[in-house]
Amino acid sequence: MISSERLSKQLQYLRTISDPATGGSGINRLAFSDADWKCRDYLIGLMKDAGLHVTIDAFGNVRGHLPGRQENLPAIMFGSHADSVPDGGNYDGIVGILAAIEVVKSMQEDNFQNDHPLDVVLFMCEESSRFSAATLGSRAMRGELSIAELQRLQDAEGHSLYAVLKTRQLNPDAIASAKYDRPLKAFFEVHIEQGKVLEHTKTQLGVVTGIAAPTRLRVHLHGKADHSGATPMGMRFDSSCAAAEIILQVEKSASSYQAAPVVGTVGIVRVTPCAMNVIPGETELGIDIRSISAEAKDAVSKEICRQIEAICQRRSLTFDIEEISKETPAAMAPAMLDFLGAICQRQNRSWRFMPSGAGHDAMHWTDYTATGMLFIPCKDGISHNAAESADIKDIAAVTEVLEEAVRTTSQADFHFSESV
Amino acid sequence: MISSERLSKQLQYLRTISDPATGGSGINRLAFSDADWKCRDYLIGLMKDAGLHVTIDAFGNVRGHLPGRQENLPAIMFGSHADSVPDGGNYDGIVGILAAIEVVKSMQEDNFQNDHPLDVVLFMCEESSRFSAATLGSRAMRGELSIAELQRLQDAEGHSLYAVLKTRQLNPDAIASAKYDRPLKAFFEVHIEQGKVLEHTKTQLGVVTGIAAPTRLRVHLHGKADHSGATPMGMRFDSSCAAAEIILQVEKSASSYQAAPVVGTVGIVRVTPCAMNVIPGETELGIDIRSISAEAKDAVSKEICRQIEAICQRRSLTFDIEEISKETPAAMAPAMLDFLGAICQRQNRSWRFMPSGAGHDAMHWTDYTATGMLFIPCKDGISHNAAESADIKDIAAVTEVLEEAVRTTSQADFHFSESV
Repeated sequence: MISSERLSKQLQYLRTISDPATGGSGINRLAFSDADWKCRDYLIGLMKDAGLHVTIDAFGNVRGHLPGRQENLPAIMFGSHADSVPDGGNYDGIVGILAAIEVVKSMQEDNFQNDHPLDVVLFMCEESSRFSAATLGSRAMRGELSIAELQRLQDAEGHSLYAVLKTRQLNPDAIASAKYDRPLKAFFEVHIEQGKVLEHTKTQLGVVTGIAAPTRLRVHLHGKADHSGATPMGMRFDSSCAAAEIILQVEKSASSYQAAPVVGTVGIVRVTPCAMNVIPGETELGIDIRSISAEAKDAVSKEICRQIEAICQRRSLTFDIEEISKETPAAMAPAMLDFLGAICQRQNRSWRFMPSGAGHDAMHWTDYTATGMLFIPCKDGISHNAAESADIKDIAAVTEVLEEAVRTTSQADFHFSESV
Repeated sequence: MISSERLSKQLQYLRTISDPATGGSGINRLAFSDADWKCRDYLIGLMKDAGLHVTIDAFGNVRGHLPGRQENLPAIMFGSHADSVPDGGNYDGIVGILAAIEVVKSMQEDNFQNDHPLDVVLFMCEESSRFSAATLGSRAMRGELSIAELQRLQDAEGHSLYAVLKTRQLNPDAIASAKYDRPLKAFFEVHIEQGKVLEHTKTQLGVVTGIAAPTRLRVHLHGKADHSGATPMGMRFDSSCAAAEIILQVEKSASSYQAAPVVGTVGIVRVTPCAMNVIPGETELGIDIRSISAEAKDAVSKEICRQIEAICQRRSLTFDIEEISKETPAAMAPAMLDFLGAICQRQNRSWRFMPSGAGHDAMHWTDYTATGMLFIPCKDGISHNAAESADIKDIAAVTEVLEEAVRTTSQADFHFSESV
């Protein structure tokens, strides 16, 4: 049986594992830091205590293996990450690993043995905070990290990821060996929502339908930096006014798209020279557009680019648009959604289907195996912050759903063309 | 006779007086720097060469005195400043001093002696670049600078203006003695426009009707910094969207005010945290509103504040508005405008009345004496920049207008209740 006391005690203990922060009262477990390593050691201990056989790959990813009744069947993998952003929270990632270990613990206590072998996974370096790239552990397991890439990725102090792996007695030269190439029956990840939808709709559980991926545009607007006092309104080429129209256009285009939900954000606004008495000659915008529908995302992105051109033409400004990323959203297999929805129904949960706006390790597995992801609410939608908080009742509930999913996966047919 | 050769040679020489710049090809004569001092020494030499008797006040302001036929009459003062912004131009300020000295030179060569004594003035530290406060020389002469203020004002290296004056063998403790309290018949200043109105309207000369003063607002918008991917459009409190509406409102309110010309600029835009994947929770705006009509400026400023409130209310954001300055525009005496307009007519100039959007030393003298200011075009309206450029023909023309003004001021009645 899932024990919320056990989960609660583990969370309480993990709260003490944090590098002395430069400021703030949040959790500091940056990837491969001493605190991250201490946390990982603790979780390895929990895995062993749950009877799992632990192996480590060249990137440091941890897998706790439990043989199935038929060890030759594809494994069921489930887990999440343990690293944090600077001054972050104690639930992001961690809840997914604790839930995974708790499921095994509960099944062991019940003497329940799955037909399929199980792999509880701890992905390293999910947060982009240290090396400016996210979900690196999953990417290593998908064979997408090369030695050159490990050498290229650096933290703020100039340490390469390659060098950092060596300090942890890992083997970056053997990064290719981290590629996971055995067949999987399914992959599951539990995570806090990091948004306000569940709380706002008073729902306990979210079954994730897809993971939105961003298209990111960097826009430079070129006007003229003239004197704010000496230049009549009719003689201006004010890049901040054009930027203002674009910001409102992004809001409008994303909000009004009907076929699928799209979000659009102008998170970066930098005007130059940024002085009281100078009309901003140059403005830089960073635009982030997301949807779990690639078509919807492309349509909104194109509409925004068209409008940028029209706005700049009308104002006689020149502009550059650079598409700095265009990632493909990950869609969950419909049979997996039915499977998880049915479990929620059976357990009489308050639940809903919902997209994930943020990226997760799970998005790297949707093309490899049937992938399911479950969200629980976090207070006020706050994450990546010391104020991050999730209710132990919700954590226990999602762990119970995960347990039933793991227990019954053997009987499910996800209609997924499995990898082997 | 005004000699454009002489003016041209002087400008050419001054172009060589610049501190080694950290970058850029512009003029670096920051107030009280070695280059500013060298430039000042050169100009003192030109004053002496023109027969002027030079005195220096406690702030370092230079006055070159020429006795009048009736030395007991109020003096006619004219001049400008010689300091530059970092990487600035060779015309801003300098043209006004060279024109003033050239007028005296020309009258001396003609053996013309004015009834009134003349004071050619070089104001120190007009630019705010070094001590974050403008027209300090004029303010010293108007008795508006205290010892405490000199100690408070600091440059980027932490040197107080008080200490800097001492390094130049000036006497900051006697700053009160810099107050100019003798009667004046008139004050004239010649300056480049630092805007595009003259060039745009193909006019050679501007007779300044008033000097606009800014009302400056600092606005802080408080929204919520949520995840750009995980927060649906309808659940956002995006401070950058509110900022965008405000930027466009400032443009609209200033452009549409009919009773007098008003300009409104949002020169400062700072979003926080300024990251691709975070909705900007906080945005700071710096708004600069100017007019030569205090009524017009107040009306537009009030309208903008009303709209900020309405926008934030509609978007459920909170806000602070801080009025960081509200200066009074300086209006030129109507009789002075007629006087200068008539000279332009007599000399058959292409000229127009126009407001000054930028501040100048002249604005400190409009309540002390009849004050006249003359503008000439600068190429593309560019100033405070290495590309600043003015035509020697225009410089000679404005110097001829200034000469006639100085020569005929004795006969003019400006209907100004003179200070003594």
